[in-house]
Amino acid sequence: MDKIEEFIQLSHGDGGIKTGELIEKTILGHLKNKILEKLEDSAILELNGTKIAFTTDSFVVDPVFFPGGDIGKLSVCGTINDLATTGCRPVALSLSFIMEEGFPLTDFKKILASIKETADESGVNIVTGDTKVVGKGNADSIFINTSGIGLVDYKKEFSPRLIKPGDKIIINGPIADHGAAIMSCRKGFNFKSGIKSDCAPLSAMVMDMIKVSDSIHCLRDATRGGLATILLELAKSSGTRINIFEDNIPLRKEVRGLCEFLGLDPLYMANEGKMVAFVGQKDASRVIEAISANKYGKGSSIIGEVAGKDDEGPVILNTAIGTTRILDRYYSEQLPRIC
Amino acid sequence: MDKIEEFIQLSHGDGGIKTGELIEKTILGHLKNKILEKLEDSAILELNGTKIAFTTDSFVVDPVFFPGGDIGKLSVCGTINDLATTGCRPVALSLSFIMEEGFPLTDFKKILASIKETADESGVNIVTGDTKVVGKGNADSIFINTSGIGLVDYKKEFSPRLIKPGDKIIINGPIADHGAAIMSCRKGFNFKSGIKSDCAPLSAMVMDMIKVSDSIHCLRDATRGGLATILLELAKSSGTRINIFEDNIPLRKEVRGLCEFLGLDPLYMANEGKMVAFVGQKDASRVIEAISANKYGKGSSIIGEVAGKDDEGPVILNTAIGTTRILDRYYSEQLPRIC
Repeated sequence: MDKIEEFIQLSHGDGGIKTGELIEKTILGHLKNKILEKLEDSAILELNGTKIAFTTDSFVVDPVFFPGGDIGKLSVCGTINDLATTGCRPVALSLSFIMEEGFPLTDFKKILASIKETADESGVNIVTGDTKVVGKGNADSIFINTSGIGLVDYKKEFSPRLIKPGDKIIINGPIADHGAAIMSCRKGFNFKSGIKSDCAPLSAMVMDMIKVSDSIHCLRDATRGGLATILLELAKSSGTRINIFEDNIPLRKEVRGLCEFLGLDPLYMANEGKMVAFVGQKDASRVIEAISANKYGKGSSIIGEVAGKDDEGPVILNTAIGTTRILDRYYSEQLPRIC
Repeated sequence: MDKIEEFIQLSHGDGGIKTGELIEKTILGHLKNKILEKLEDSAILELNGTKIAFTTDSFVVDPVFFPGGDIGKLSVCGTINDLATTGCRPVALSLSFIMEEGFPLTDFKKILASIKETADESGVNIVTGDTKVVGKGNADSIFINTSGIGLVDYKKEFSPRLIKPGDKIIINGPIADHGAAIMSCRKGFNFKSGIKSDCAPLSAMVMDMIKVSDSIHCLRDATRGGLATILLELAKSSGTRINIFEDNIPLRKEVRGLCEFLGLDPLYMANEGKMVAFVGQKDASRVIEAISANKYGKGSSIIGEVAGKDDEGPVILNTAIGTTRILDRYYSEQLPRIC
């Protein structure tokens, strides 16, 4: 009998340890080059002296419509936010649909309206596209790919390499909303739970942050795998030890309730409108102030700090009850099609 | 009962009249802007004085492996060729996978190897990517999106607007190979028919053409819907009447045989390595010479000419037996998942 390891599994797409293995061993094993191997949310290219950011994301979220958004809004936000991690000004998006035969046209139109509204909010145009249709049963309703281009018009660089001991770690609001919204739909709690996805385009907020500080060292969009996964990745790639403080991590009480009820850890649940910034200590309050002025940064908080150099890259959670817990590396979310 | 018009149908993705309607009415209805409304294969953006081409394509071809290529090679060629229609130098690609749980890892590795080989041939790097996995039965094996960026480093423009009466229409080799290869797989003739997809990256060939002529007015990649569909689109958008000559249109005898056997019209069958160029009469032989020097241009031919102004944009086929036939607008291919 063939072994399960010889086939693609759901865990190859959940942002956890298996996804990391597939990307680092299999994909980079074939396609490695100096830009791709950085595994950043966006690639930076220099073309005739112009620096651009370039990124791609496919969206397969189930359900297609959820509290706080839909696959159209998500597909614009996801790509805008990947661009935003470079601090660039997003300029243009591509849009490619794979639809299942029988998908309702009215739903497609609602999705297009969401796309337009979200793109307009971020000041980007959809400039190129593609549409494919597959037979009934060969895809599940609609999948969307958005790729994006942004203009990097400043000299600053953001990179895990630049993370330093002493840096403060800032997030722009409560975690786990997106994962909890999708989960509550799946469990049939739907819109009644009051939990909404945080799905939001963050580029304007990020550009505001950059204006007030020259010591923002690294930016990362905390999507699949949640806050814990991106902190673990960044601690490891920067060779530092990270301390986070449970009391300071914003979490809505209804999301906390859902997580307690279902036995989920909000630290590992997906966000679609949360930017994590590593900022030099001197600028932390100034950055919080800039974020708080934006509508997507009202619940911002300093959630932790870089405690020192450490090749193992541990992330230590200081709990509300005064204990510490070393976060597991790449806990598997087991919630496929979260985005 | 709901009407069929209220749902996405296979014909919304076949490149024919329904696809055109969906794009022009529904998608442009929501997302229209000055770049997107051109409906070119690639968008041209100007960023800080640097002109770049940007395009996207999702690939859902069934079967994933076919004579002459696989979905990996196809996904690189398709995007490279969309970029090539602008005459640009392709620089970077993104790569986004949607895989079905249970897809064999060995097949995934073969696809990655094809991607690498084809990207290397065109001198582009894969610089950013994404991987999603959906449950068994929620997608069919693997879908790939590639978006691409090219550097437009000349002043020339290519556009249907520039097509002029007197222009010669040139193609770089035999038509319908890709459609016939996929069709022969589907019908179970598989590799025995000897028919192979023409899947090839054409950017180097196009750059060679541009060097020898300043009267190349328009370039178009003849994919879904085949040669006839792109000629009909270009005749209409340029407001001209096009004459093509059956005797001059390259077609392999085994492909002709398959088409006669199955009752298919090769003029409407997909190509994945065929560029159609509209060239000022004075330069036609020079362009043929440049194309013929490239390995993908050995069977090139002048297949027709722009006969005059005509808002209706008719395309007239002068048949081998001396009759004429006005080509139907947007004949529907009815072969889903051709690319």
